Amino acid sequence: MTRRNGDPTGLHRVLDDAVVLPQAAERLDTRRELWPDEVRIRVERLNLDAASFRQLERKHGGDRDAIRAEVVAIVAARGKMQNPETGSGGMLVGVVEEVGPDSPLGLTVGDRVTTLVSLTLTPLVIEDGLDDWDGRDEQVPCRGYAVLFGRSIAAVIPDDLPAEVSLSVMDVCGAPALTHRVVSGYDRPTVAVIGGGGKSGSLSLAAARRAGARRLIGIVPHEEEAARLRAAGLADEVVVADARDPIALRDAVEKAGGPADVTVVCVDVPGCEGGAILSTADRGTVVFFSMATSFSAAALGAEGLAADVTMLVGNGYVPGHADLALQLLREHDGVRALFESRLG
Amino acid sequence: MTRRNGDPTGLHRVLDDAVVLPQAAERLDTRRELWPDEVRIRVERLNLDAASFRQLERKHGGDRDAIRAEVVAIVAARGKMQNPETGSGGMLVGVVEEVGPDSPLGLTVGDRVTTLVSLTLTPLVIEDGLDDWDGRDEQVPCRGYAVLFGRSIAAVIPDDLPAEVSLSVMDVCGAPALTHRVVSGYDRPTVAVIGGGGKSGSLSLAAARRAGARRLIGIVPHEEEAARLRAAGLADEVVVADARDPIALRDAVEKAGGPADVTVVCVDVPGCEGGAILSTADRGTVVFFSMATSFSAAALGAEGLAADVTMLVGNGYVPGHADLALQLLREHDGVRALFESRLG
Repeated sequence: MTRRNGDPTGLHRVLDDAVVLPQAAERLDTRRELWPDEVRIRVERLNLDAASFRQLERKHGGDRDAIRAEVVAIVAARGKMQNPETGSGGMLVGVVEEVGPDSPLGLTVGDRVTTLVSLTLTPLVIEDGLDDWDGRDEQVPCRGYAVLFGRSIAAVIPDDLPAEVSLSVMDVCGAPALTHRVVSGYDRPTVAVIGGGGKSGSLSLAAARRAGARRLIGIVPHEEEAARLRAAGLADEVVVADARDPIALRDAVEKAGGPADVTVVCVDVPGCEGGAILSTADRGTVVFFSMATSFSAAALGAEGLAADVTMLVGNGYVPGHADLALQLLREHDGVRALFESRLG
Repeated sequence: MTRRNGDPTGLHRVLDDAVVLPQAAERLDTRRELWPDEVRIRVERLNLDAASFRQLERKHGGDRDAIRAEVVAIVAARGKMQNPETGSGGMLVGVVEEVGPDSPLGLTVGDRVTTLVSLTLTPLVIEDGLDDWDGRDEQVPCRGYAVLFGRSIAAVIPDDLPAEVSLSVMDVCGAPALTHRVVSGYDRPTVAVIGGGGKSGSLSLAAARRAGARRLIGIVPHEEEAARLRAAGLADEVVVADARDPIALRDAVEKAGGPADVTVVCVDVPGCEGGAILSTADRGTVVFFSMATSFSAAALGAEGLAADVTMLVGNGYVPGHADLALQLLREHDGVRALFESRLG
């Protein structure tokens, strides 16, 4: 094989004929040797994306061996873990094994890290056939190696928190970081978080408070979750509303002190665009973190409502996002309690 | 029929069982009588969305009578023009016939206007069976009436420009207005407009200049369009690149003086997210106006590239958007020439 020139995006490891980025590639080059700006990780565990694992479980009717065999086969064929049905991957945990001389990631051999870029673009080799995985959940013990590019991101796992909690926080750390940035741009705003009782939602509420929000409204789908979020003490008002019903959502937010200057959408159900737009004040901002967001529903919805709102695609990367999220967890018992109850 | 309480979104005219906004509704109430904040328009012409018209043409193999019959049938069944296949509508031109006492739109009986909200949410009755339409293009002469809601938008057609040019400008006027706002937030930025030779692209270049851009880069798909855009004098650099090839686009923008502080995506082809992100500087902004944008490709793409860029869903509504776009056309001969050449 010839050795292509390295590119910080990892383009040099794409084996497809067309020029595509690693995430869009059919197949990646998984050779052990590093390009100068790369890092190799000794893998300990894969965390499959929940939607991907559920799809595999459904497809194989819960046959654990078949699930395991399919994950091994996907990674062998594509050089990365990307569920062909859901398109999603997950993240991994491991120990830094080698750091290329030009790597900008600031990692040291021996660091225990989690990747903050998706497995869908991470070259990966499984060496143990996933023999230690029972196929019962998305936590996959794994021996093998993975490669990070110049523009990848990884975070060192802190010592003072259970690893599972840290990982669970890092998985959603883009949301509080971007929420913090957006809320900081307003003067003591009202902030509504749709799905405020979830992982990214509770962290986003805490981030909004730290960024100077005057009034925090948490929206949850049912009374049980409302009780949990009230107990966590993260919001000034907790309201129950179906986020897919635009008028119900608008009216609920208004009753709780809205419209919001900043509305953060953290629920993974389709059809929340209209309600989020209607719940937001003129010159306000809606941040969409849900992968179920429809671009055209948001764009045409705002136009159709003559709504002068800024709408952001929730970028999962903001510098310092993992550190901020871990800090929020350490400082807010309510956030920690919600996370621990979800890890159950 | 009972008379429901009015809502500025037009919810009171939704006839569906579920609570949905007019755009998502299966059927709207088209009664002539106005709610207090509504306006009725005497329709002169419909401008069908181009994608919708092409779909109808393909479906009926160019049979003009069948195309006409289908549009009449859709409007009769749904109370609005929304192509069930493409989901899109278009806009209309007409004269204000009656203004409800509480209408906030500032219109006067006799004003000749175009609607700036989609036909997909506009109650519409066709009275002439579209007898005067030859079915050959998306300009549809029509007698009938339409209703605007409290939160709708309409613009008075100016006297000093050919009506066709005005309409064509108003159709895309959200793009230059939002571009102007975003560019104004940076200090003498570099701005790249992907699809700079098109209608929304050329207006966005002119808007970026007015908002204080230091350097304007126009990206076009082939040499012929490059020559036209160079002749229009709207960009400092015009480069030819395939916007679907992320590396080619990044390198082309870099060569032209990038990366860009603001990248505006105005081309309606899928797969431009990665290239737009890579062409944009750290802390820069990408504005997606293309309806072919994939929300998840943008979100996961930026995360996968560790790109600290703000990504905006191009909202078609910004206050004053129609006036700004018409001004830009009047002030820039280059914009006007491009529009006139496209109206051919």
